[in-house]
Parts: sequence; C-alpha cells; structure tokens
Amino acid sequence: MQNRILSSGIKNHIGKEVLMQGWLHKKRLLGGLVFILLRDRGGVTQVLIEDKDEAQKLDGLQLGTVLEITGTVVAEERAPEGTEIHSPKITIMLPVTETSPIEIDKPLSHKSENLDTLFEYRVVGVRNINEGKVFKIRSALNRYIREFLHKNEFVEIQTPKILAGATEGGAEVFKFDYFGKEATLAQSPQFYKQIMVGAFERVFEIGPTFRAEPSTTSRHVSEITMLDIEMGFIESHDDVLKMTENLVFNVLNRVYEEHAEELKSLNAPELVLKASFPRYTLKTIHEMYTKATGINTVGEKDMRPEEEKWICDYSKKENECEAIFVTEFPVESMKFYHMINPKDPTTVCWADLLFRGLEIATCPMREHHYDKLVVQMKKAGIDPEHPGYKYYLQAFKFGLPPHGGFGFGIDRLVEKTIGLENVKEAILFPRDMNRLTP
Amino acid sequence: MQNRILSSGIKNHIGKEVLMQGWLHKKRLLGGLVFILLRDRGGVTQVLIEDKDEAQKLDGLQLGTVLEITGTVVAEERAPEGTEIHSPKITIMLPVTETSPIEIDKPLSHKSENLDTLFEYRVVGVRNINEGKVFKIRSALNRYIREFLHKNEFVEIQTPKILAGATEGGAEVFKFDYFGKEATLAQSPQFYKQIMVGAFERVFEIGPTFRAEPSTTSRHVSEITMLDIEMGFIESHDDVLKMTENLVFNVLNRVYEEHAEELKSLNAPELVLKASFPRYTLKTIHEMYTKATGINTVGEKDMRPEEEKWICDYSKKENECEAIFVTEFPVESMKFYHMINPKDPTTVCWADLLFRGLEIATCPMREHHYDKLVVQMKKAGIDPEHPGYKYYLQAFKFGLPPHGGFGFGIDRLVEKTIGLENVKEAILFPRDMNRLTP
Repeated sequence: MQNRILSSGIKNHIGKEVLMQGWLHKKRLLGGLVFILLRDRGGVTQVLIEDKDEAQKLDGLQLGTVLEITGTVVAEERAPEGTEIHSPKITIMLPVTETSPIEIDKPLSHKSENLDTLFEYRVVGVRNINEGKVFKIRSALNRYIREFLHKNEFVEIQTPKILAGATEGGAEVFKFDYFGKEATLAQSPQFYKQIMVGAFERVFEIGPTFRAEPSTTSRHVSEITMLDIEMGFIESHDDVLKMTENLVFNVLNRVYEEHAEELKSLNAPELVLKASFPRYTLKTIHEMYTKATGINTVGEKDMRPEEEKWICDYSKKENECEAIFVTEFPVESMKFYHMINPKDPTTVCWADLLFRGLEIATCPMREHHYDKLVVQMKKAGIDPEHPGYKYYLQAFKFGLPPHGGFGFGIDRLVEKTIGLENVKEAILFPRDMNRLTP
Repeated sequence: MQNRILSSGIKNHIGKEVLMQGWLHKKRLLGGLVFILLRDRGGVTQVLIEDKDEAQKLDGLQLGTVLEITGTVVAEERAPEGTEIHSPKITIMLPVTETSPIEIDKPLSHKSENLDTLFEYRVVGVRNINEGKVFKIRSALNRYIREFLHKNEFVEIQTPKILAGATEGGAEVFKFDYFGKEATLAQSPQFYKQIMVGAFERVFEIGPTFRAEPSTTSRHVSEITMLDIEMGFIESHDDVLKMTENLVFNVLNRVYEEHAEELKSLNAPELVLKASFPRYTLKTIHEMYTKATGINTVGEKDMRPEEEKWICDYSKKENECEAIFVTEFPVESMKFYHMINPKDPTTVCWADLLFRGLEIATCPMREHHYDKLVVQMKKAGIDPEHPGYKYYLQAFKFGLPPHGGFGFGIDRLVEKTIGLENVKEAILFPRDMNRLTP
C-alpha cells in the first residue's frame, strides 16, 4: 500500500512507473485500442491497454472489478487530469461478473420519478463520481462547521437519543419499549443544549434526530441530521443572528473555495452572499409578496413555501445575498420556551434563516426566567409538574443566563449548497414513511 | 457582550477596569470581608467585596445566581489565576434563591454508592468545575480524532440509526413501530461503513449506537457513542492495527499536551505510551497470566476482565506502553464478516485494543470475497437471502477491495483517559436498564 499512487496525485509522476489500485470504472474500445478508467478515492485515471494479453484479462469482467495496475504515467491532454497510464500490467484483485443495476460511469438521474431507483441502488450508485461528490461536500460542511464552532469556543456535547417520554410535540415521536418502560426517540436536543449552557455557556451537537412525520414530501424525512447550538450571556436576540450568519458565511465561502471544481461539476449555483444577511419581518414579507404576486398572504402566521422562494430570489437580486432572516414571528406561533419580544409583546424573539428558498435554521432567543417560563408552559397547556420537564426546569431554577441558539438542518444545507431538488438526495440512506432500506 | 472579559483571559487586564459575567460559584466570609468566586466558561475569578452595599446585594441569594460585575483587576498571588477583582459593582442578572441539590464548589464524589446521585443531579452537577472538565476533554477527544482522520483522507459519513430489522445479534436490539412496519435501532454502523468503502475507500462516523443490554455493570450502557472507521485497499490486517495505533497515539498525546492542567486537576494518570503498541496473541496472554497468577485461563476463547487489567499493567511496566493489541482470536469467536487468518485457519484477523485495562476498540479485517462471505454466513446460521442482508451483500457483489476497520468506544476512551472508574461517569446523561433520565 505504501507505494500506491492515487489519481489525485498522478501529475507528480509523469515519466515514472507507478502502482495504482482501484475499481474498473469505465471501459471502451476505440480504434482497436482498449481504454479504461480506474477509479480510486482521488478520482479517475485513464489507462491505455495496447497489449492483447493484458486486455484479455478484463474479458467477461464488469464495472466494479477491483484492479491493481502498474504502468508508466504519460502526459496526455485528452485524458482526465492530463495524464494517462501506458504499458499497464494488470492484476485482478477481485473480479466482478454481474452487471451493475445502476450506471456508475454516467451522471445519474435525479428526476423525481427516478429517485426511488436512486435510493434503492444507493449502495452501488454512490460509487458514481458525481454522487460521491455530494457526500464529500457533506463531509466537508460538517467539518467546517465544527472548526468554526471550536474556534468560537463552543464545547461539543453528545446527548441521549433515548428519552423517557414525549415532551415537545407528542404526536410525531417514535415510541418503544425500554426494559418495560415507555421510551421515545429524541426529536431534538433542545432541552439538553439549553441545560448545558449552565455549564459551558456555548455548546453544539451534530447528530440524528427523529420525527414520525406521516409525510412523503420532498422536504420531510423521519431521520434528520441536525446541528444544534446554544450560547449563553447574549445581550439580545441579535447576538444569535450574528453568530448564525457568521457561521453560514464562513462555512459556505470555505466550501465554495475549497471544493470549487466539485461544485462546478455538480452544476451547483454560484454563491451570492454578503457577510451580513438582510432581515425582513414576517409582516413585511407578506406585504411585499402580496404586492408583487397578487396572492394575498397578509396576516398569515407563517411563510408559504412559495414565499420563501420568492423572498430569497428577491434578496439575491436586490441585495446580492441569497440568505435572509425572517424576523418577528407572531406570539401565536411561539413555542413555550421562546422569549416574547420585550419591545413588542405580539411578536417573538425568533428568526428563521432562509437560504436559496428554504428554511435551513430556526434561531430563537429563549425565555430564561424560571417564573416566566412556567407561566408560558401553562399558557401552552403544558403541565410544569410533568416528569418530562423536571430536569429541564432544574437548569432554570439554579440559574441560566440569557441565551439563544439555533437548530440547523445539515441535510437541507447540503441540499441547498449543491442545488439538489429534494432533501433526500443529500442523505446517504434516507428514511421516510415508505423507505426503511437500504 | 463585546466588552466582556473571561476568567481565562483576566491576566492580560491587570490594573484595568473590566466587565465580567458569570455564575456565583462560591461565597465565603473571611475576617469581615466577602470573597466570591465568579464562574464563566473560562474558569473562575475571585472577587473581593469590601463595600457593604455591594455585599448586601447577594443576601439571600444562592450559588448559581447569574451576575454581572465591573471592577478592577489586581494581581493577587493567593487567588486563582493570580488575580482578583477589587471594588466591584454588582448587578444581579438572574437571582437564584433555592439551594443547589448538589455541591458545585467542591469535588463531587464518584464513589459507586454516590453515582446515582451524581446522575440524578447531572443538570446542576456538571456546573462543578471538575465535572465540566470531563466533558471538555470529551469534546477535545472527539475533535482531535476527527482532525486526525481528515488529515488521513477519511470521509465522514452519517448513516441511519433506524433500520429495517435486526441483522447482527438479534436479541439485544430495541424494536419499534415504524408506520406499521417493524424497525430497530442501529447497534452499529458496521454494514454501512463497509458499503461505503466501495465509494470512498476511507470513511468514519462518530455517532450513537443502541444496545438493549439487560445489564447494570460499570461497563455497559444502552446508548453508546462509537467511532467507526473503515479503510479499503489495505495490504493486510497489519494496516488496520497501524492506523489504530497512529490514531490513539496522536490523539492521546495531543490531549495530554493541550489539556495538561485539566487532566492533572482530575488526577488523571500519567500517559505511558509508545508509538508502536505491543502485540500479544490471546494464547500468549492466557499462558502469561496463568503463570503469573496461578489462575488457569489457557484455552479460553476470550479475555477475562482481570486478564485485560493484568496484561496492561504488565505492558506498562515491561514495555512502557499501557496500550496493547490482543491478536489471533480463535475462529470459534468470529463474526461471519471477519476474515479468517490466511496463515492459520484456526484464528481470525481480529485484534482488540486494550488501554489501561479495558478493551476500547475491536480492529478486524473483513472477508471481502462475496462467495466466501456467503459461506461464512451460512456456517454462522445466517440466511444470506434474508432481506436484512440484501444491500450489504450488494456492495460485495459489485466489488469491495480488501478492507478493515475498527469500532471504538468514545465513552470508554474518555473514561480511561481521565481514569474514571465507570463508563457512565464519562457520559453526560447515561442510559442503562434502570436509568432513562435526565
């Protein structure tokens, strides 16, 4: 293994004999010559096989066959990476004799009528170079987010996914038997991250969350990877929005810089972002949208999906920024742990971050006064004495500073960064009402 | 917030007026003077309150009260960080009037009879400085592991925790209703990481895994954070062991360097490690242990917990390395996906990594030939036609190179790095048969 060369590094070996290992990714005959592409984790390398005995070794073998090839690196403009392997000696490390159920050497269709096939054969389909890039970018996004947060003194926490009982939004939880007790799967680390502000001020977690959504839309899956962050000693809601835009601006710019070629080959849209994201109140957006389209949304308590798209397009054009904050959601839509706007009790300290037409994060400030929180719980019809809230309330009783944070969908961020149409395309093995495999 | 100073940075402000925010962490009267400790995410700062009006503001308030303090930084040898705040003006940001159910200003007892109290009051207990350090080190370990893996070109994957049905080890899984179908919680990302070798060669995941272990020992919890890695195109099992020891050596040295003070204050043992970990066959250890102790374990198929401790102690003394590999496990103990040792068919290409007396990782090479794998499945009484194995086998049918990897318990690593006695102490909110809260 020590002498193995990867496709990504081949340019440094022109004129030299190298050893490569990888998968047979493509094979074609051209004017009596055999050309193959060898795929490895660094990309693909073209190999020209002139020797008939060597070519014969591949007879009857299919794409996916694992090969070891030694040969000479030659500059060749028409080949990927500008190089080609000549005079190869081929060793079959592992033969594949069945034809792949899905094409790995051509871009796979992501049309909605083909998605089921895409997911059914994901195991092989992800070997497709373009599919693979989606998940390399996903890995990079996770990495850059964590690096940003560590730089900003956030402590990573790992909180339980098995909970004692439904607390928030009881309907859409998965329930199961836990040694004779009822347990549920965590819908979010919301309570835990707030609790941990009491210890570390700034915490984050990237992990799975579970929602029993009886829905098969392009927006909903039942297992979601969420980034959750929470920060204490904020002066106001504004601090939460600033941290959110700093993170998004930093991470997206980095991924667009360091993965420019990959994003280009996936036809990702150009990034149009400013360091400070425009802010619009929900009311303003309703008015603007109504005026522009003639569809009356004035007075609605939330945004319509078409409005989310419209305002992002508008902001991209007018502000040169395709991420925006929607602010001042009405109290009628609040969760019990949100803070009511001290300057206007009809609205909540809660903003949504929209990016390229989709909500990717919810960024509220929390009510941190124990007494007010209990009042808000009761108003929301929640019994503060319910054992599910016991430990959560403990954190407030023994002192939590002003704090806020955000829940941030990693799947949606990947979807929108690349310009996919359906969040499931951004997930290796998505789960929805109808899909529990692979 | 912009002008706030943290305890960790206070030394740079001697002689200056500063603004600090944090929790009342300790309060004592000494010769008519009031001393308080203010805790923030950077540590603690001592504040001397001479003014009676200021001191009075704290009357009736308990530890945990959230404070804002402005005052002058003065060098004071006897105080933490060698500085003290004088002439403070105090603002109560949030009063706490109830006494904490657990002490946050003195080291908490981790004696086994006190563990239940420790976990029951974890919400507040983690504000204890020493408890907090455990989880800061945990955060650092996660970070250093990922940084090592990214440097070594591993791609991070996020695989589903909701699975279609029990595959590996059917007994100890949590089952639940998933829109009318039976689903289970993932016990490990084993199959997914092997599948993904076919796309990225080198992959890793840090995430929760779930085991319905009907056990309350100090070693077992039902929700475990695992690092799973898998790497393709290995030459032999040796490559897996080398990657494992490189990771552990690199990460532990880094955490001992960068967190020396924290580890010292937690009474963590000194790190005794060499870059290359000694390797002993299971058979050799049984013989050595039997000879040294008179307890006959020769011929046993696994290690006893006492043997794990003994061999680590032995190696620490004799080899100056408290991490070792146990190699050549017998075929009788193998899992169907392990590779049988090509040089000795009575043993398996499987090693365990022991550190400070505990197994923290299992490092096998996998069988990558489809036909042999199917034979091994049948031998193990598993039906290769079972739908639970369909997608896994697809990956092999379409070509997987030689590969291996390891499953690595993050909880156990934290436990052993710090020198805790029970794995649950290393988990923020542990889950076992009897504990489903907080």
